[in-house]
Amino acid sequence: MASTVGQVMRRMASTAGQVIRCKAAVAWEAGKPLVIEEVEVAPPQAMEVRLKILFTSLCHTDVYFWEAKGQTPLFPRIFGHEAGAIVESVGDGVTDLKPGDHVLPVFTGECKECRHCKSEESNMCDLLRINTDRGVMLNDGKSRFSIRGQPIYHFVGTSTFSEYTVVHAGCAAKINPAAPLDKVCVLSCGISTGLGATLNVAKPKKGSSVAIFGLGAVGLAAAEGARISGASRIIGVDLNSNRFEEAKKFGVTEFVNPKDHDKPVHEVIAEMTNGGVDRSVECTGSISAMVSAFECVHDGWGVAVLVGVPNKDDAFKTHPMNILNERTLKGTFFGNYKPRSDLPSVVEKYMNKELELEKFITHEVPFSEINKAFEYMLSGASLRCIIRMDA
Amino acid sequence: MASTVGQVMRRMASTAGQVIRCKAAVAWEAGKPLVIEEVEVAPPQAMEVRLKILFTSLCHTDVYFWEAKGQTPLFPRIFGHEAGAIVESVGDGVTDLKPGDHVLPVFTGECKECRHCKSEESNMCDLLRINTDRGVMLNDGKSRFSIRGQPIYHFVGTSTFSEYTVVHAGCAAKINPAAPLDKVCVLSCGISTGLGATLNVAKPKKGSSVAIFGLGAVGLAAAEGARISGASRIIGVDLNSNRFEEAKKFGVTEFVNPKDHDKPVHEVIAEMTNGGVDRSVECTGSISAMVSAFECVHDGWGVAVLVGVPNKDDAFKTHPMNILNERTLKGTFFGNYKPRSDLPSVVEKYMNKELELEKFITHEVPFSEINKAFEYMLSGASLRCIIRMDA
Repeated sequence: MASTVGQVMRRMASTAGQVIRCKAAVAWEAGKPLVIEEVEVAPPQAMEVRLKILFTSLCHTDVYFWEAKGQTPLFPRIFGHEAGAIVESVGDGVTDLKPGDHVLPVFTGECKECRHCKSEESNMCDLLRINTDRGVMLNDGKSRFSIRGQPIYHFVGTSTFSEYTVVHAGCAAKINPAAPLDKVCVLSCGISTGLGATLNVAKPKKGSSVAIFGLGAVGLAAAEGARISGASRIIGVDLNSNRFEEAKKFGVTEFVNPKDHDKPVHEVIAEMTNGGVDRSVECTGSISAMVSAFECVHDGWGVAVLVGVPNKDDAFKTHPMNILNERTLKGTFFGNYKPRSDLPSVVEKYMNKELELEKFITHEVPFSEINKAFEYMLSGASLRCIIRMDA
Repeated sequence: MASTVGQVMRRMASTAGQVIRCKAAVAWEAGKPLVIEEVEVAPPQAMEVRLKILFTSLCHTDVYFWEAKGQTPLFPRIFGHEAGAIVESVGDGVTDLKPGDHVLPVFTGECKECRHCKSEESNMCDLLRINTDRGVMLNDGKSRFSIRGQPIYHFVGTSTFSEYTVVHAGCAAKINPAAPLDKVCVLSCGISTGLGATLNVAKPKKGSSVAIFGLGAVGLAAAEGARISGASRIIGVDLNSNRFEEAKKFGVTEFVNPKDHDKPVHEVIAEMTNGGVDRSVECTGSISAMVSAFECVHDGWGVAVLVGVPNKDDAFKTHPMNILNERTLKGTFFGNYKPRSDLPSVVEKYMNKELELEKFITHEVPFSEINKAFEYMLSGASLRCIIRMDA
């Protein structure tokens, strides 16, 4: 890594303030394979930083907006929002990042000035909150990417499927430079989302029981959080029993496939646990799973945490007595982590071996084969596929 | 009070182990005026205590079950569950109460042995949780009250509309004997329920904003909790604007009558508060108020607490994004107070003048005129009417 950083730093000295020509994987149309193109990346403007991406990984959200089913399509666009990067240059007004800093770009930011950033409880920054419909930078309402003069849209302020990208300085979390970027890049989104849902919001006590709905990468990260918390029973719920074997690596001790039961899954879990689990974390976005996740927690002390994003027209519906019996329902966004303030400590959890990231990384491809990462995810074969930008 | 206690103690010495004949207000039929009758009160059995009631007060729940609309009627019955009392005698196995102790009988108990009692978070005792359908004592499934051999049903394990009553020892909270029972008797139910909803569950910070739905006694107690917490804005919501003037005494600073607005009340509150209140407490039991109370809290950090008991067929329904945007929904029962462990400290809040109880007590009647207390409540004239048993 040291030599890579050295090379990057030497190149950076010569590129600051210049347009950079580099490779990016451009999505020209919804659902069509990305095309590696030479793009021009403009220098960062005020409060922006330009990043050299070393590793990026693919998340379901990229695939969802690439498929563009049910949202306004915005193409051509450069996707990607999980990455490990090095700061190449900084724009005016950026004081706490400098060229050479190691960062994780994040799809939601932390301006440190708004009411949300100043609240201890919220990470939903007013200025830099995720906006999937915006394909341009805040400063001038324009893109920093172009091909022969044609602007290419950004994605959630990150667009990491490019050798270089420009992000708002509030969307880059500076981390320990000793952390291997090919591992900690997965903390930019999904893994932190699931992990934080458990550690920051559900907060299971040692010895408690936790149900996890959905055993994809986010759910397994939630299970990993339960394992780290010392939960003694971690019940994984998924419609695909093939996921159960892998989930054991993440501390899941028992499995429920709702298809195997005639009664509602919350009743199955209540019977397994003498009245309900202490905590549940919902990571599918299915409205019925959301309701089940709430109704399966024990009265008196149970806490259900919703992570998965539902469809627009869904309604969460339950009998109010389920609430009045001292259950708690909470929603979380990005695991309640404030990106700049909190991600460095998540990286440290990996560095001190408390958090195991390797088991999330099932595949690796060179940038030139980025479309394979999409195939792995669509077939359900991968949890996380790392894309090496230098290969 | 000292001489009253002395008189009671002298009488008690002669009554332990005996059936006591005394006056009770008996509800013979749903919705018909109570009749003062001479009843026989059997001695306490194992884990029971017999109490001399000095003061009792009327709560909506008494009226609700007396009207018996929508529940299984259970008559003849002795209602009453808010009271200040002195222990007359104790049954076998009762070790932490003795004759002469001052207690508040409570409609829900604390056995100190079950999982709920052992949980720091719950007060929903498995053994002694409220049961409105049960009209008998747990020990033998029989009533301790009779008139000429005819059993008279108990109500929620308390039946305080009687000069003497028998309760489970887990349903009597021993309090500071210096506390005036004609004031602290209101802490047996409604006032503690509202106060605890704010202090123990919503937990508003100093300077925060709190919306209270429903400005009856419970809602005003929730407002009192917000006042004690140092909330700077306390927004009262009620369909009856006549309640606004009185609510000012309880710290309510602003008022919203949903009837005065064309838009949903959660939108009105969001506009008043730049996006929503920090906390809300719902004390009406109306399902639309419950949903509004949830939707009116700020994203990122808002906490809504449900107190009011809904109809059987109601459904709580909201868009899941309202949850995912980092709002919290919690239900509470009896303000999350564990009756025996926590009520003594609530009494102390009154004794040290932090909590003001006098303003809840709007009326007082002698026991012989107990039906007037029902009239005051049904007409909306009273918050709490104290019934003096010795008069």
